[in-house]
Amino acid sequence: MSPDPAVQAAAQPDGRVAVIALEGVPEICPGDDLAAMLLEALRNTPLALPLRDDDVLVVTQKVVSKAEGAIVDLTAIEPRPELVAFAERWDRDARQLEVVLREARRVVRMANGVLITETRHGFICANGGVDASNMGPLSGNVVTLLPVDPDASAGRIRAAVARAFGVDVAVLISDSFGRPWRWGITDVAIGVSGMLPLDDLRGSPDADGRIMRSTVRATADEIATAAELALGKTAGRPAAIVRGTHPTRGEGRIADVLMPREMDLFP
Amino acid sequence: MSPDPAVQAAAQPDGRVAVIALEGVPEICPGDDLAAMLLEALRNTPLALPLRDDDVLVVTQKVVSKAEGAIVDLTAIEPRPELVAFAERWDRDARQLEVVLREARRVVRMANGVLITETRHGFICANGGVDASNMGPLSGNVVTLLPVDPDASAGRIRAAVARAFGVDVAVLISDSFGRPWRWGITDVAIGVSGMLPLDDLRGSPDADGRIMRSTVRATADEIATAAELALGKTAGRPAAIVRGTHPTRGEGRIADVLMPREMDLFP
Repeated sequence: MSPDPAVQAAAQPDGRVAVIALEGVPEICPGDDLAAMLLEALRNTPLALPLRDDDVLVVTQKVVSKAEGAIVDLTAIEPRPELVAFAERWDRDARQLEVVLREARRVVRMANGVLITETRHGFICANGGVDASNMGPLSGNVVTLLPVDPDASAGRIRAAVARAFGVDVAVLISDSFGRPWRWGITDVAIGVSGMLPLDDLRGSPDADGRIMRSTVRATADEIATAAELALGKTAGRPAAIVRGTHPTRGEGRIADVLMPREMDLFP
Repeated sequence: MSPDPAVQAAAQPDGRVAVIALEGVPEICPGDDLAAMLLEALRNTPLALPLRDDDVLVVTQKVVSKAEGAIVDLTAIEPRPELVAFAERWDRDARQLEVVLREARRVVRMANGVLITETRHGFICANGGVDASNMGPLSGNVVTLLPVDPDASAGRIRAAVARAFGVDVAVLISDSFGRPWRWGITDVAIGVSGMLPLDDLRGSPDADGRIMRSTVRATADEIATAAELALGKTAGRPAAIVRGTHPTRGEGRIADVLMPREMDLFP
């Protein structure tokens, strides 16, 4: 694919952001060396190289979970009776819901066919991140779980990129979450390495020099969302470089994004 | 439901997205011809032209509200007593909270110093979209309200762009909303013209041909978020072209994004 001049030129600082999906990432299977496959894809994506220090590599949860073997065979799952009734009523797979509950720290809501839980990581989302889509050759009776430690997953990919290319990019692991009150899913960050997931602008001046009192920018989530626009849901593209966002470097953790329970107005 | 070819095309972008902030948009004041100023900025932004049919022009709420005079002078506002106590306890401006309540259809939560309301448009957000930041020469005792009809605001800008450049781009009005459970704000769409704000992929196949049962992509919100990455909060950049996202064209309304009350698990 020939580089689009607008994308190329957009990959410059100050008001320009470019999202470049990596080309040719193969189907990922349990035990695969995901980092090595992403390095190869970086080499296959002309616009991606040379990498720059402020690039962010966004990798979708699904391939991370597959490579790490965070996969459950539903044929071995016996759902508890109350889930069977809920699943029948709402045309859901009771075995998948059972996996969601086993992975959950608590149930936040279970109504209207929707099961919202808090995962072990502290994420609150529909189906606890358990997902049956885009399973490749595993498709059918398997689901992926969220990676056990998505920050560590991001860190391993970041280290592999640094070793291969000598550039310390930030890495995000992304997943698609729904939102209260609005239809549709958007991608957020569920793992981070090499950047702060939030930019806390409180106390800094706005364009008029007025001190901002409540502006915390969810930069990592915004970058994950932008990546999704280039990746799509069905094109088999699991990773993208997001260039030009000037992330604040540092050893951030995704837990920094999670609101503590005592501040949560929607428990 | 059979896969809609337009939806499938939208789900398979070519993997490259560019966000190009418009250069040289001046400070906007009540009564200004915002569309004319955006046209001039488009001409001043080399990469933005020629516009393409699949470009999306994202304009932030603040300049739309200013141009439309959706502004309230706080010195004329008398807050109700219960707001005075809440404001004192949480170090908020009671007059601003009074404006939020006057603009609200209902209060969703009022606790921990946070006032979350449903606006007349049906948006559920902190402070009902009433905002005191980046007010330019008006700074001090004024706040902006949300535009009265953000879809119509977007439509007027879209018509002006079509007249000037002969290209029918989609236009989004964006604003920064917080989220339950996660710190930080991200931009979402609060007005739309010329595209569907959601891409409903239910019934279309995933990368393995498996029929997706629950994937509705919040495309307009994702595009608004991507734009924010190039605009930032403090640089005086109120508009951007987002190129390469292949939005599904159509006469969408932002109300399409809003979940009806009976489906809302967090009322």
